Amino acid sequence: MSGKFNSRRIRLGMVGGGQGAFIGNVHRIAARLDDRYELVAGALSSDPARAAASAQELGIAEDRSYASFNAMATAEAARDDGIEVVAIVTPNHLHFAPSKAFLEAGIHVICDKPVTATMQEARELATVIENTGKLFILTHNYTGYPMIRQMREMVAGGAIGKLRHVQAEYAQDWLTEAVEATGAKGAEWRTDPARSGAGGAIGDIGTHAFNAAAFVTGETPERLLADLTSFVPGRKLDDSANILLRYASGAKGILWASQIAVGNENALSLRIYGDKGGLEWHHHSCDQLLFTPYGEPTRLITRNGAGAGAAANRVSRVPSGHPEGYLEGFATIYREAADTIIATREGKKPAEGVTYPGIREGLAGLAFIDAAVESSRTSSWVKLDI
Amino acid sequence: MSGKFNSRRIRLGMVGGGQGAFIGNVHRIAARLDDRYELVAGALSSDPARAAASAQELGIAEDRSYASFNAMATAEAARDDGIEVVAIVTPNHLHFAPSKAFLEAGIHVICDKPVTATMQEARELATVIENTGKLFILTHNYTGYPMIRQMREMVAGGAIGKLRHVQAEYAQDWLTEAVEATGAKGAEWRTDPARSGAGGAIGDIGTHAFNAAAFVTGETPERLLADLTSFVPGRKLDDSANILLRYASGAKGILWASQIAVGNENALSLRIYGDKGGLEWHHHSCDQLLFTPYGEPTRLITRNGAGAGAAANRVSRVPSGHPEGYLEGFATIYREAADTIIATREGKKPAEGVTYPGIREGLAGLAFIDAAVESSRTSSWVKLDI
Amino acid sequence: MSGKFNSRRIRLGMVGGGQGAFIGNVHRIAARLDDRYELVAGALSSDPARAAASAQELGIAEDRSYASFNAMATAEAARDDGIEVVAIVTPNHLHFAPSKAFLEAGIHVICDKPVTATMQEARELATVIENTGKLFILTHNYTGYPMIRQMREMVAGGAIGKLRHVQAEYAQDWLTEAVEATGAKGAEWRTDPARSGAGGAIGDIGTHAFNAAAFVTGETPERLLADLTSFVPGRKLDDSANILLRYASGAKGILWASQIAVGNENALSLRIYGDKGGLEWHHHSCDQLLFTPYGEPTRLITRNGAGAGAAANRVSRVPSGHPEGYLEGFATIYREAADTIIATREGKKPAEGVTYPGIREGLAGLAFIDAAVESSRTSSWVKLDI
Amino acid sequence: MSGKFNSRRIRLGMVGGGQGAFIGNVHRIAARLDDRYELVAGALSSDPARAAASAQELGIAEDRSYASFNAMATAEAARDDGIEVVAIVTPNHLHFAPSKAFLEAGIHVICDKPVTATMQEARELATVIENTGKLFILTHNYTGYPMIRQMREMVAGGAIGKLRHVQAEYAQDWLTEAVEATGAKGAEWRTDPARSGAGGAIGDIGTHAFNAAAFVTGETPERLLADLTSFVPGRKLDDSANILLRYASGAKGILWASQIAVGNENALSLRIYGDKGGLEWHHHSCDQLLFTPYGEPTRLITRNGAGAGAAANRVSRVPSGHPEGYLEGFATIYREAADTIIATREGKKPAEGVTYPGIREGLAGLAFIDAAVESSRTSSWVKLDI
Repeated sequence: MSGKFNSRRIRLGMVGGGQGAFIGNVHRIAARLDDRYELVAGALSSDPARAAASAQELGIAEDRSYASFNAMATAEAARDDGIEVVAIVTPNHLHFAPSKAFLEAGIHVICDKPVTATMQEARELATVIENTGKLFILTHNYTGYPMIRQMREMVAGGAIGKLRHVQAEYAQDWLTEAVEATGAKGAEWRTDPARSGAGGAIGDIGTHAFNAAAFVTGETPERLLADLTSFVPGRKLDDSANILLRYASGAKGILWASQIAVGNENALSLRIYGDKGGLEWHHHSCDQLLFTPYGEPTRLITRNGAGAGAAANRVSRVPSGHPEGYLEGFATIYREAADTIIATREGKKPAEGVTYPGIREGLAGLAFIDAAVESSRTSSWVKLDI
Repeated sequence: MSGKFNSRRIRLGMVGGGQGAFIGNVHRIAARLDDRYELVAGALSSDPARAAASAQELGIAEDRSYASFNAMATAEAARDDGIEVVAIVTPNHLHFAPSKAFLEAGIHVICDKPVTATMQEARELATVIENTGKLFILTHNYTGYPMIRQMREMVAGGAIGKLRHVQAEYAQDWLTEAVEATGAKGAEWRTDPARSGAGGAIGDIGTHAFNAAAFVTGETPERLLADLTSFVPGRKLDDSANILLRYASGAKGILWASQIAVGNENALSLRIYGDKGGLEWHHHSCDQLLFTPYGEPTRLITRNGAGAGAAANRVSRVPSGHPEGYLEGFATIYREAADTIIATREGKKPAEGVTYPGIREGLAGLAFIDAAVESSRTSSWVKLDI
Repeated sequence: MSGKFNSRRIRLGMVGGGQGAFIGNVHRIAARLDDRYELVAGALSSDPARAAASAQELGIAEDRSYASFNAMATAEAARDDGIEVVAIVTPNHLHFAPSKAFLEAGIHVICDKPVTATMQEARELATVIENTGKLFILTHNYTGYPMIRQMREMVAGGAIGKLRHVQAEYAQDWLTEAVEATGAKGAEWRTDPARSGAGGAIGDIGTHAFNAAAFVTGETPERLLADLTSFVPGRKLDDSANILLRYASGAKGILWASQIAVGNENALSLRIYGDKGGLEWHHHSCDQLLFTPYGEPTRLITRNGAGAGAAANRVSRVPSGHPEGYLEGFATIYREAADTIIATREGKKPAEGVTYPGIREGLAGLAFIDAAVESSRTSSWVKLDI
Repeated sequence: MSGKFNSRRIRLGMVGGGQGAFIGNVHRIAARLDDRYELVAGALSSDPARAAASAQELGIAEDRSYASFNAMATAEAARDDGIEVVAIVTPNHLHFAPSKAFLEAGIHVICDKPVTATMQEARELATVIENTGKLFILTHNYTGYPMIRQMREMVAGGAIGKLRHVQAEYAQDWLTEAVEATGAKGAEWRTDPARSGAGGAIGDIGTHAFNAAAFVTGETPERLLADLTSFVPGRKLDDSANILLRYASGAKGILWASQIAVGNENALSLRIYGDKGGLEWHHHSCDQLLFTPYGEPTRLITRNGAGAGAAANRVSRVPSGHPEGYLEGFATIYREAADTIIATREGKKPAEGVTYPGIREGLAGLAFIDAAVESSRTSSWVKLDI
C-alpha cells in the first residue's frame, strides 16, 4: 500500500455540489453508503460564501475548501494527506476542465454524466486519461443496479441467444410545460444548449437508456435514425426523442426518451430479445427481472432471490424482498470505483466482476447525441462516430 | 321494417371458416354472443366435403351450404329468406373477390382484416361500396374493447389536451423460430407474400396497433419511417417492424410490431401523451386504463367502474371487476354492425355512439403497410397515401 | 341418441331472468357462447306482462312462455319437443321449489348459486336429485376459469406438495354505503335475510371464495372460526366476514369476504401454499397464474401459453394473450353441463376432465354459511356439517 | 449545545453486529446514509478476537472496542468524548440487559426489535426509560418508509373516514423447510424459544405487520384470536400465524404472518378500509400507494410525486420514480433519532413530524405475541395487555 493513501477510507474531494445541489448530495450519500470514502476537500461552489458554508456543513476543514477547482487540484496534489479521487458534479459544460485538471494533478476522477459537453472535449479528455494513467469513472448509475448486472450476465452467458431486438425507454414528464421559464430546479440549464450541449432529453436521459442497453447487451448500435422534437414552444433543445437503432450484428432497436410523457417518473425500461429468450426490466420495480426462455413460462428473477446470479449478488446489500433502489445503485458505482482505486494503488487488477462506466462509455454517449442530432436534421441513418 | 328481414335475428352467411379454422369460430362466437345473428348459409371451404361437413356441424341447411362464394351470393340474393349480411373470414388474398360479389348482390359485408391484399383492390372495393350503398364492416376488433372506447372518448373530450406522442406496440413471439416450415397453424400463409400481401408482422399485427392508435387519437399519421426486418433466415416477410410516425398536427409517434419478441403474447399496448395528460393501456389488463392528468396522481379507470364514461359503458356487458376480453370485444363489432344494419333497414341513423371500422380504416391500413415497406426499402420518410 | 332430444342444440328453459335481470342475461350469453343450447321456454317473471314481453324479446314462442314454473315443468315434460334442461336464475329463496319441480318432471337443472336458501332445503333437494337421477349443475362460475382449472390440476399433480395454507379472498365495495335503502340493483334482496338466507357477504361472495378454494385444493375445511360484521348501520346481514379455516389434513387457511372494502371490484383471489410450492391467482388478471416451486424463480403461467396443462387448455377458446374472462368462464360451466347432458342421454360417462359444481358443492356452501354464522355468534371453532 | 456533544456527527456505539452479522451492517449503513452519526465505540462480539477484528475493520479505536457491554457503558459514560447513543443489534434475548445498562449510564439507546424477549423485561425497561429520561428508539423500520408515513397522514386526515377493516400481511418462505437444522443464517436462533421468546413467525415478522398497521391506522387492536402453526416437523415455534383482530372502535382486521408461504419474499402488505376510502400498499412496490376515495377511480400516489403529502416528502431523499427502499427506510429511523437527540440536547422538541417507534410500540408488540400465543392455546379471543 502506498504510504500516502493508507487510511481506512479513500480520501475524496468534490467539485460542485454546494448547498441545494441535488446530484452532489446523491454522490455524497453514494460515497458514504458502503463506508469506503471520506470527503475531505471541495470546491463546492463558484460563489465563495456558498462554497465555505457548504464545506462547513459537510465537515470539510476550512483550509481544504477551495475557491476554484484549479487551486484545489494543485493544493491537494501537494499535500501528504491530499485527496486520492475527486467527484465532479457540476453542470455538463463544466465537466471537462476540472476532470482534466485533476487527472493531470495525478488524482483519479469520478464524473457525473455526460462526460463532457462536446465530443471534441471528450476526445481530448480520453487522451489526458491515457497519458496520465489515472482512473476515470463516469456515473452512469443504472449500471450499478443488481438486475441490470443480472441481465448483462445472462445475455453474455447466452440466456437469450443471439440478440435481435432492443426496446429501450426513458420517459419522464417534468418538462411537459415550460418550467424552465419559472425557475424549476434543474430545468433551466438542462434546456440551455450552452450549458447542456446539443442534446436535451436525448442527452439528459436518452444517454442513460443508451448506456444501459449497451451495458446489458454488450453491443453498441452502429447506426441510428432519430426524430427529435421540442414540443414546448420556445424550448431550444429536444424534449422528446424517437430513435431507431441498427447494430453491426444485425440486431435492431428502438430508443424512446421523453420528458413530456405525462404520468412517467424516471421510467427507464429495457426489453431485450434474442433468438432464444427475452428479458424485461422496469425501473419502478428495479429488483425484479422477467426472463422468458423461448417456449417456456416467463420467470420472475428477483434480486438476491432464486435465479439471481453472481454478478447481481455481488452488488446486493440486503435480502430479496427488501427493496434496494437508486441510492444503492449509485453507491455501487462508488464501491466499484473504490475497489478499483485500491487495486490500482497496489498494482493489481480489481476483483472478478468489478466494472464501472468510463471514458469509452462517455465517448459513446456523445457519439449517440451527435448522431441523433445529425440524423434528425437530415432525416437519414447516421453512423455513430465513437 | 322490410318484409324480407323481419326475423328477430339478422340472417348471416359466412365465407371461409370451415372445420379447424380459428378466426371463423371467433366470428361465430362474436355473432352469437349478443344474440343478434343467425348463421343460415355458408361457403365454408373450397374443399366441398369439408364445406358440407362444416355446414352440417353448424346447423346450416344442406341447400344453403355452397361450393363457392359466387354461387352463394347469387342464390342468397334470390331467396326471400336470404342472408342480409355475410362474414368473410378467408385469408387476406381472398377478401376482395367475395366482398365485391356480395356487395354487388345487395348483401352487407363483415370482413376480417386486412380489407384486401393490395391497395389497388382496396380502392376498387371502396368504389363498389360507394356504388352499392351497402355496409362494409372491417373487424379491427380491438376497437370494440371498452377501454379503447374510453380512451377515444377521453382524447376527443380533451382529457389529454393536444396530442404530442403516441407509443403503440403489438408484440408476439410465435414466429421466433421458422414454424412456417413445420406446419404451424396460421404461420404458413401469414409468411407467404402471395397470400398475405406485402406485410408480415406489419400487416398481421402492425395494422392492429396502427388502427387502434388512430381510433383512439382521432389522428392518422401523415408520414412514417420504417425499418422492417426478417430475423428468421429464409422468411420472406418482415417479422419485426420498427416505425417512427409523424402526424400533420405536429404529434410524433413510435410503432413497434414484432412476432419474435420472446415472452410477449398478443401484447398490444397504447400509450398516448398530450400537453395536459397521458393515457396508458395494455392488452393483458384490458379492462383497466391508466390516466394521468398532468401534475396529478395517476388514476386507474376500470371498465364499468368509477371514471368510466358513456362510450365504454355502452359496450360493457358485466360489472366492473368481472373481466371481459377478446371475444366480448369482437362481439361488440358484431353488435355495432347489427345496430347499423337494423337502422339502415329502416332508413335511420344508428344510435349515438355506434361505431365500427370500415373501408376507410381498411384503406388506411394498406397505406400504412405500403408506406412502411417503401420506407424500409428507401430509408426515408414516406407519406401515407390514403 | 334419444329420439326426443336429437336436435343439434340442447333445448333449454329458464325460470326467472326477465327483462332487466342481470344474471339471467349472463346465463343466456353463457348458454349461447359455445352454441350448445337453444332457449325455447321460460317462466321469466312472476309478473305475467313482463314474462310475456321478455319471452317475445328472447324469441320464445308464446305458448312456451309460462306464468309459473310449475306449469312450465308439467307442460314441457309432456311435449315431444320439451326442454331437456332448465336454468333457475331467481333470487336465493326461490331456488328450491323450481329445482325440485323440474327434477321431478324429469328435466335436468342448472341453478344459480347458492343451491337453496337453507340447509334443510338443500338436503331435501339432494334426496330429490338422488331419487330422480337427473343432473343438477350449480353455477359456481369461477370453477370454469382456465387458470382455476390449471391450479386444481397442478395441486392434484403434486406441484405444491402437501397443502399447508390457503389464503382466499373475495372483496368488493358496492355495499360500502346503505345502497339497499336507495334501491340499488341487487342490493335490496341481498341484504334481506328472508330472501338471501343467513349469509350476507359470506353467502353472496364468501361462498365463491370457499368453493373456489375447495375446487382448487381438493380439500374442504373441517372447522372454521368466523367474525362476521355488519358495518353499515341498520344492515341485517354481514357485509364483511373474517374467517380462519382448519382442514382435516392439518392445513390452515384464512378466508376474507367483504363488500365494504373500498377500491375492490370483485377481487377474488387465491393463494395456496404447500411444502413444495406456492400458487397465486387474482381475478383481475384471470388468465395469469403465478407458480413458485420452492427455491426456484416464480413462473408466470398463462392461459394457453407455455406451462398451461390439459385441464386449462380444454376450456380455453382463444390463444394466449387474448384475454378471456367472466362470460367465458360462465360459458364453460354451460359447456361442461352440455357435454354431461349429451353423455347422459347416451348412457355414457362424460369425457375425461369434464367437471362442474353440483349438489355436493351446494351443501358445502350452505354448511360454510351456517358454520360461519354459528361461529361468529359463539366465538368458537365450529365444525362444518356437510 | 452541550459541550460534550458538539461535533458535527452524533457519536454512536454499537453492541453486537460483529463480522458476518447482517443486521448490524444494516444499522451502520442506516446511520451513515444521512451523515448524522459517527461510529466510535463497540462491543461487537462476545468473542474477543472477533470483536477486535470487527472494530478494526470499522475504524473503531482499539481502546474503544470493549469486551462487554457493561464495560463499554461504564467507560463511554466516563469519557469526555464518549458516545451519546448506542445501537443494540444482538439477538432478542440480549436486548434487555444492554439497553438497561446504557440507559442507566445516561446514554440513549437505539434497539433492534423486538424490544425484549419477554413482557416482564419490557415493563422493567419501560420503568428504566422513564426514570433515566433517556431516549429509546426501537427500529421498527417499516415506519420509516415514505408511503407508510403517507398512509398514516392520510388516515389521520380523514381520507378513508372511520376505520372498518385492516388487512395486514407479512409473508416469507425461507423457513419452508427445516433450515434451522442445516445452519441457515439467522434460522437457528429465530426458531429457538430460549433466544427468540414465545413467538416464531409472529414475533419475527408478525410484529412488523402489527406495528405497521398500528402506525398507519393510529389504532391498536383490543382483542385478537389466533391460530398459530408450526408446519415444519420438530420446529418449536410457529412458522405461520392466522389472526383475527378486533378494535375498540368497532373496526376489525386480519393479520397473516407466514414464513412458509412459498414465493413470498418479505411480502409485507397493508390494506386499510374505512367508510370513505381504501388504501393499499405492498412492500415490493414500496414507493407506490393506491388510494380509492369511495366511488372514485383508484389513484396511484408515488413517493415525492403528485398526491404525496408533507409526512412522506419529509422523509424522501430522491425524486419520484427513482426507487428508495429498505436501507433508506431504516436510515429514516436513524435520522428521526438524530433529530430527536439533537433537540433533546438543546431541551427542545423535535421538529414537526419527527416520529419513531419506542418503548410503547415495543410493549404493544410483546402484548401482541403473548395474546396470540394464549389465544392459539385456548381457541378464544384474548385481550391485548399493553
